[in-house]
Amino acid sequence: MARVVVDVMLKPEILDPQGQAVQRALPRLGFKGITDVRQGKRFELEVEEPVDDAALARINELAETFLANTVIEDFTVKVESQEAGK
Amino acid sequence: MARVVVDVMLKPEILDPQGQAVQRALPRLGFKGITDVRQGKRFELEVEEPVDDAALARINELAETFLANTVIEDFTVKVESQEAGK
Repeated sequence: MARVVVDVMLKPEILDPQGQAVQRALPRLGFKGITDVRQGKRFELEVEEPVDDAALARINELAETFLANTVIEDFTVKVESQEAGK
Repeated sequence: MARVVVDVMLKPEILDPQGQAVQRALPRLGFKGITDVRQGKRFELEVEEPVDDAALARINELAETFLANTVIEDFTVKVESQEAGK
């Protein structure tokens, strides 16, 4: 068992109204000094087998075709925990 | 300038229908061996000043009161990049 995390964020040039709404609310709530907020998605995948290069390539494909809209979003894939017994 | 990332995920005991929908779709799409998917939110905050312990404490408070619903969600705060010139 391993855990793989896929982070999906809007590309920097794409307007992020959710993040802007959060950012604008902060001074009213007493939080200053935060110049920008971007909101995205985080997927935690539990994978049965140890994640080797082939599995990682497949998860990248999955993220690209299914979890992210690559026209407007960027994604990163990282293995967060690789359990022993590989 | 520093970037702080706040990850907000549903607590493990809370049902995650979004994650389940993704997980169920995977075999149909040809992706096997993924036993669980959880979907959450990722916030990227750009902070004006270098993030010291006091700033981090304030961002923790912000995440707890505003970004996460701590009844059903867990959150983690981490400093992703601390620019030089501190």
